[in-house]
Order: sequence, then C-alpha cells, then structure tokens
Amino acid sequence: MNLTTDEVQAPPETEVSAVDGLVAVASAASEAWAQTPRADRARVLASVADRLDAVADELVPIAMAETHLAEARLRGELLRTTFQLRLFGEALLDGSYLDARIDHADPEWPMGAPRPDLRRILVPLGPVVVWAASNFPLAFGVAGGDTASALAAGCSVLLKVHPGHPRLSAATGSVVAEALTAAGAPKGLFTLLYGSEAGRAALQAPQVKAGAFTGSIRGGRALFDIASSRPEPIPFFGELGSLNPVFVTRSAAETRAAKVIEGFTASFTLGAGQFCTKPGVLLAPAESGLTSQLASSQLPDPAPLLNERIVAGYWQTWDRLTSHPAVTVLTVGDDVRGNAPSPTVLRTTAAALLQNLEELFQECFGPTVLVVEYDTDDELVAVADAIDGQLTATLVAEPDDEIEPELVRRLVPKAGRLLWNQWPTGVSVTHAQQHGGPYPATTAPATTSVGTAAITRFLRPVTYQGFPEQLLPGELHDDSPSAPLRLVDGRWQL
Amino acid sequence: MNLTTDEVQAPPETEVSAVDGLVAVASAASEAWAQTPRADRARVLASVADRLDAVADELVPIAMAETHLAEARLRGELLRTTFQLRLFGEALLDGSYLDARIDHADPEWPMGAPRPDLRRILVPLGPVVVWAASNFPLAFGVAGGDTASALAAGCSVLLKVHPGHPRLSAATGSVVAEALTAAGAPKGLFTLLYGSEAGRAALQAPQVKAGAFTGSIRGGRALFDIASSRPEPIPFFGELGSLNPVFVTRSAAETRAAKVIEGFTASFTLGAGQFCTKPGVLLAPAESGLTSQLASSQLPDPAPLLNERIVAGYWQTWDRLTSHPAVTVLTVGDDVRGNAPSPTVLRTTAAALLQNLEELFQECFGPTVLVVEYDTDDELVAVADAIDGQLTATLVAEPDDEIEPELVRRLVPKAGRLLWNQWPTGVSVTHAQQHGGPYPATTAPATTSVGTAAITRFLRPVTYQGFPEQLLPGELHDDSPSAPLRLVDGRWQL
Repeated sequence: MNLTTDEVQAPPETEVSAVDGLVAVASAASEAWAQTPRADRARVLASVADRLDAVADELVPIAMAETHLAEARLRGELLRTTFQLRLFGEALLDGSYLDARIDHADPEWPMGAPRPDLRRILVPLGPVVVWAASNFPLAFGVAGGDTASALAAGCSVLLKVHPGHPRLSAATGSVVAEALTAAGAPKGLFTLLYGSEAGRAALQAPQVKAGAFTGSIRGGRALFDIASSRPEPIPFFGELGSLNPVFVTRSAAETRAAKVIEGFTASFTLGAGQFCTKPGVLLAPAESGLTSQLASSQLPDPAPLLNERIVAGYWQTWDRLTSHPAVTVLTVGDDVRGNAPSPTVLRTTAAALLQNLEELFQECFGPTVLVVEYDTDDELVAVADAIDGQLTATLVAEPDDEIEPELVRRLVPKAGRLLWNQWPTGVSVTHAQQHGGPYPATTAPATTSVGTAAITRFLRPVTYQGFPEQLLPGELHDDSPSAPLRLVDGRWQL
Repeated sequence: MNLTTDEVQAPPETEVSAVDGLVAVASAASEAWAQTPRADRARVLASVADRLDAVADELVPIAMAETHLAEARLRGELLRTTFQLRLFGEALLDGSYLDARIDHADPEWPMGAPRPDLRRILVPLGPVVVWAASNFPLAFGVAGGDTASALAAGCSVLLKVHPGHPRLSAATGSVVAEALTAAGAPKGLFTLLYGSEAGRAALQAPQVKAGAFTGSIRGGRALFDIASSRPEPIPFFGELGSLNPVFVTRSAAETRAAKVIEGFTASFTLGAGQFCTKPGVLLAPAESGLTSQLASSQLPDPAPLLNERIVAGYWQTWDRLTSHPAVTVLTVGDDVRGNAPSPTVLRTTAAALLQNLEELFQECFGPTVLVVEYDTDDELVAVADAIDGQLTATLVAEPDDEIEPELVRRLVPKAGRLLWNQWPTGVSVTHAQQHGGPYPATTAPATTSVGTAAITRFLRPVTYQGFPEQLLPGELHDDSPSAPLRLVDGRWQL
C-alpha cells in the first residue's frame, strides 16, 4: 500500500441502505472474535500497532494536511495510539478485567438455602458503533482509544469517520483492516462508516449493542437519545464537553502568580485550545492581581484551528461571550474572525458568573478562557457547587490551605479527575486514569474512555450455575493455567 | 414500637409538592453518608439487620395478611433480607469493590510523556430512588437488595413503596428508620415515598443520581425513559421481565423425563409462579412424550396470587395465550378466573413459536407455562437465537450432549445467568451471582441487582492526580492500614 496524500481520496458517504449489510457482517465477526482467545486478541492488537508505527511517515503528512496540527504533535499522538493498542493487549493477557468470580456449592451458606455452584465472568457486548473525534485524529480517531478498547473487549467495531479528516481516516482504516486481515482476525471486525446518516442508522440496528463517542454536547446528546429510545435501549458512552475549571487559592496566587500564569497559558493554548480537557475557566482571587498579570503576559502566537466547522463554532461562542455585559475582554490579538485566532482572555466576577451561569459557563473550543475573580472563599465554594459535570477540576493551592478539604469534597461529585497543582491537558493512558465525569461531561459517568479500565464499557457479566467444567470458559475452571485474578468463595486469589 | 397489624395503617400518598423537600434532605444525608467510614456503614447495616430480625414475629403476620404468601416463605425471605444487609457490610469491610488503583509518577512511561501520579477510586453517586417489588415484599421490598446495596455504596435512598403491601412497607420502613437513627446515621438517609406520582417526581429531581426498580416491562420502561430524558440523564437499573426458557435436550428427555417434570413443576409453581425467574417456557423434544407426561402429572394445588392487580394481569395474559390458535391447553384446574389459579400447562410447537414469537413468548406472571415441542436440534438453536434478553436460560442436558456447546454459545448473549440441570427460581445472594440480563430482562445488562456486585451500580470512579496524601481517601495512601485489594503500577496487591 502506498499512502501518499495524492493517492488517498476521501471516500463518498456510506449509503444508508448498505448499513444493514455491514452490521450483519460485523455481527458475525463479533461472534467469532468473542470466541478468540485473549492471547490471540492481544497479538492481533499488537500487529495493528506495529503496522501503524511502520507507516508513520505516510500517515503523519496526511494528518498534517487535514488538521493543521504540527508534525511533532501528530507523531506523539501516533505513539500514544499504538501504545494504547499494546497496553490493552497487556490487559488482555492479565485478564483481571474479566472480574472472574467462583462460588463453590455450599450447603451451609447462611442464607436459608444451600448455595449452588456459581461462576461469573464478563463477556463482550457485541458490535459497537464508535464516533471518531475531530481533535485527536489518531488517538481518538479511527484506531483510537474507543476502537482499541472495544476490540480488546472482544467486540467488532463500526467506525463512524469524523468529517474533519476523511483522507486520514481512510488511510488509517486501510492500514488497520490490512493488519487485521494479515493477523487472521474475522472478516468485518472493523468497518468504516462515512456520513452522519450511516452512523445513526448503525446505532439503530438491532444487532448493535453499544455506542461510543467523543464530540459536542449537542451531537452527543442527540445520539444518546437515539440509543436510549431504541426498542432495546443500549449504552452510549459519550464524552461531550467540559470547561475544566481551575480553582486558584489565595495563598497560591500570592506565592507564585507568575508560575500559575505560565502553566495555565501553556495548558489552555495547547493544540490551539482544542482539548476536551482545556482549562477554560480560571478562578482567581480578585485582590491578587493575577488577572492583570495574565492580561499583560506574553501569550503564544496564533495557531490554526482544525477545520472550518470548528472555526465557525469558535467565533460564534466567542461572540456570545465577549458581548456579554458581565464580561470584559482583557487580551485579544489581531486575528479576529480568522482561521488562526490569537489567544483571548476574558474576565468576569464570581458573583456575575453565579448570576449568569448558563451564558458564561460555556465551553469555547479554541484558545479562549474566562478568568473569574472571586472575593471570598465562600464564592469559590459556591461556584464549585453551582457548576455541572466536568471531565476535570483543578486545584492550584499551597499545602495546608484551609479551603482545600472543603473544596475537594465539593468537587468530587462534579468531576471525573481532580488535579492538584498540575494542568488538565495531557491525559495519560494508564491503569488508574479516569477520563469521564458527570453529565454533560459524559453520558456515562461510571465509565472512562481513557486507560485500561475503558475496556469494561464493552462487557457484561454472565453467571454459569452448576455447569460442568468442559462447558465453562477456561478462566472459570477450578485449576486453570490461565486463571487471572479471581474472587473465589469470597477471597481474592492472584 | 408495636407493629401489630391493627396499629400499622397504610399511609396516604406522598404529596408531589413535598418531594423536593424530601429530596433535599436525602441529598444532605447522602453527602454526610458518603463521608462516613466504610466500617461505620457496615455497622449501621448490621444494626438494621439485627432490628429486623428482632421484629420478625411482628412483620411476618402483616406480610402474610397483605400478600397471601405462606409464613415459612416469608420467614425465609426475611432471613435473606437481613443476610444480604450483613453481606454488604462484609463487602464494605473488604473494600475491593472500590477498585482502587494507584499509578505512581513514572518519567519513563513509554507513551511519549511522563506519567503523573494518578490514584483512582469509586465514590457514591448520590441519592437513589428505589422502587420496591410486589413479589418479594421483604427481600426486594423496603429493606431489600436495592436499598441494601445503595446504602452500602454510600448513597441515600428514597424508597417508592409498592402499593401491594403498604402496611408492611410502613412497618418495615419505621423499623429501618429507627435502627438507622439509633445507629447514628444521618437524618434523611432513608425515606419512604407513597404513590407513583411521588416516585416519578423524585426520579426527576436534579439531586437524584440513579433509579433502581423491579417490576413490569411497561412500568420499568416508562421510568427508564424518564431517567434517560432528564436534562441530566441518570442510570436506571430496572429489572423488568423474563420468560427464563428451559431447553431440554433429547438425551435428557429420554433418560429422566419424570425427574425433569418434577423439577420443572416445582420451579414454575413456586410462590404461585410469581418469581421473576419462573421458568415460563419449556422446550421439549416432540417425540419424547415429555409433554403428555407433564399433562397427566399431578400438579400442585391452587395458591392465592399476591393481590387483585396481579390476578387481573394474570388472567388477561392467560386469555391471550389460551385463545391463540397455535396454543393447546393441556392442563387447567377448576379455579378459572379466581384469585388462586390452578397451574396451567399450554402447548405449542417450535415452528409456531418462531412464527408468532411476539404473541406467544410472553411472561404470564403466575402458574402458567408454555411447553414448546421441537422436532430438530436446529429448531432448538433457532429459538435460542430468536428470543430477546432473559434473566436466565436453563439447559437440561446429559453430559456430552452434542448440542450443548453450540446452545451455550447462542444463549450467552441472551441471558445473565445460565443454568445446567438446575432450576432458575431461587437466586442465591453470593459474590458470583448475576441477576440481570439483556433488555427487556433489565435496562442495564452490565449490572446485577442480586449479590455483592450489585453495589457497583451506585458508584462512579474519580481519579486524583498529583494529590498530597492528606487530601486523598485513606484507601489511596501509599501505606494504608485499611488498604483493600489495589492495582498498584499495573500489579494487583492484596
């Protein structure tokens, strides 16, 4: 295959009439894949990763052309993409994600009736429709985290391509498909869908058992509503939108204002502000002068946004925010209305924010932030209580700030990840990562879309009662060479 | 307190206008309860169990009067109820349900960027509305499994009382409330709601974060739709309806027809057929004569149904099934249309079932079953493929039946629990239990409503990044005397 930019064309939209057939093939593939041993699935994921690494020099230029993101960023993103495919392979080999449990028959079980032999394990859901994101064309794209975790779980994937980078998607998709075929994966395990209508049609197909999405609140909610209102409702794991507020305490503002400004600026302008974890709101003590220092600081140069649609959305929100009577524009560059906006810093007060929460507490996808000045710690707590669900909330604080325990307690119900003196952009792919949060940050706050725990989204438990060993999955045999971590008669065994 | 039947009155319906106030108190209680150490929560649950055990002689007569269930059954159910409160207490002390994970900072993390210090744990969702079931007035009632698991998780509970046993609910509710108060639990941790409107209003309150339900498909789906269409959608754990089909292989029918009939009859008539796990459909080989033996066997005497509403629903479904042209009535007693129906055995063929699936594959809540005669193993597999989601599916088979592996593979996507030569009624409360299944058996197939894993429904993950130890939950400290099972740097540690 030669993936030069000239040769890879953006494919036409998938015909809605073709979707049923594609789903049927994905469904058959899902059955076969679910029966494929974990070690074989891990090997297949690794071979997809190897193949993607091998064509980095061909994929990255296509991505650069379509997204305006820099080469270093895209190479780093590809590294992340293949790393997470391999990390899910490790999770497969480990097997603890199966939450295997064995209760042997117990005539003395003190419930009033003997306990039968019960053995529980997680099994794959079936075909999953994944919507790729615009802002991480590789790591949340065709071969991104949702694809990796669904394939690892044992599900087939119907991948709705993001219209912002169709040629990259086609190229990545053919690399993935080729690697899967070469590794012996079932035909139809991974299928690209082009166009919103095809995506919606797939989500409504009876054989499809889940959806996963990264994008806007409006788009994600519409798809969640489709998934929930099907004759058979299915889970929809949508990562929608987040302001990722940063709470700067008085003592932090006093002792290291310059450092806070430096970190905040680097974080909110990273990737031209197009991160779902961009810190969009900074709460700063009014008396600290943090706002004025930020206003007079050197902000990064303008950087191009991903595509025309995002440019239009950015200026629309920007107009709404800047024209609000409670908002002051502190810094704005020359490039107003262009494709590569200069960073904009806006200012309001905590009192005004609390009075105009719906208008002011709004994600502006791009390099614009709102600094909210507070007068009292009570206001800080009131803002924490008033806001809706977030992917992250950040404390910039000194050790032993009096306000901290209270603020943490108020923020735990509001965010999936809490940070202390670090910045929310950059979501490490690890075992303990949580990328999710209460609505509208996500439609499924009990799950994560980043990290090894993401695999759990595409599984459901089945218990076998009184089964002979030859009909049980190997992980549930009494003596199993492949036994993962298991809960046996109430005790965990490694 | 004296709980004699005369003194406990059925309370009036909760005013909808009062619901907001009740939710506000439940919300404050939930915050305090979430901060209560696990060991203290376990102690509180145990004291509720102790108090319920102590008033068994007062509760059971009220239950008998309201539900027509026998004393022995109700005493057994109370044992189950208090057993599960204590078992959730044990789960709290064990702490592994928290899925605690620690990733220490790692500058060498091979993702292209250093790994920060990340620590993940599950936290309570907040107030939960629980709908009590009609058919297990204690074990799935006011102090039943949903209440026990939500309280264990650290959530407050608003309990929608089932109209079938209001006096028992009031009595149980005051026992629970008194025990909670005596044990020092926060005020408003547990609140009874009377009336459908109050239940629906609570489900729509913004502070409420989940619903749990056991009941009919129609009622459960309506509530699921409310939960899903809120401005902030919330999870709704509904256990709705199930036919629990039993697949009898040829060899099993040949070798032990009498034993199969005995077990099946005992299971489908248990509790007058009012179990969500009642085996409502038996697939039997046509040539085996199992049907005629069942038709001529001695069936149990009539037993009264729970209440008028269930009687009416029973006969409605019974009429629909018995009048269907593809159905033959094999056995029916004298008590047609009464409150205590005789067991009814109906007959059809697999071919007819597949052609009339929607009309014939319908739960009849009471002692009526449909025997489906099949001619070929292909028909058996076709029925397994055609049916919708079930709580259970049962194989009655001989070891090494050729059809088994295929049938198991087809049934795994269809049911939460698979049984082999056992009967589905009787759901043991254990660690490995799974009481749930694909829709319409439940609205949340990835969860269970029975067993210790049920606690997970009322939790969501939060990750702390870069936090100082004094602001972390004890379970996430490096050296924690209370450390449960944890995943530390990718390795499980006990």
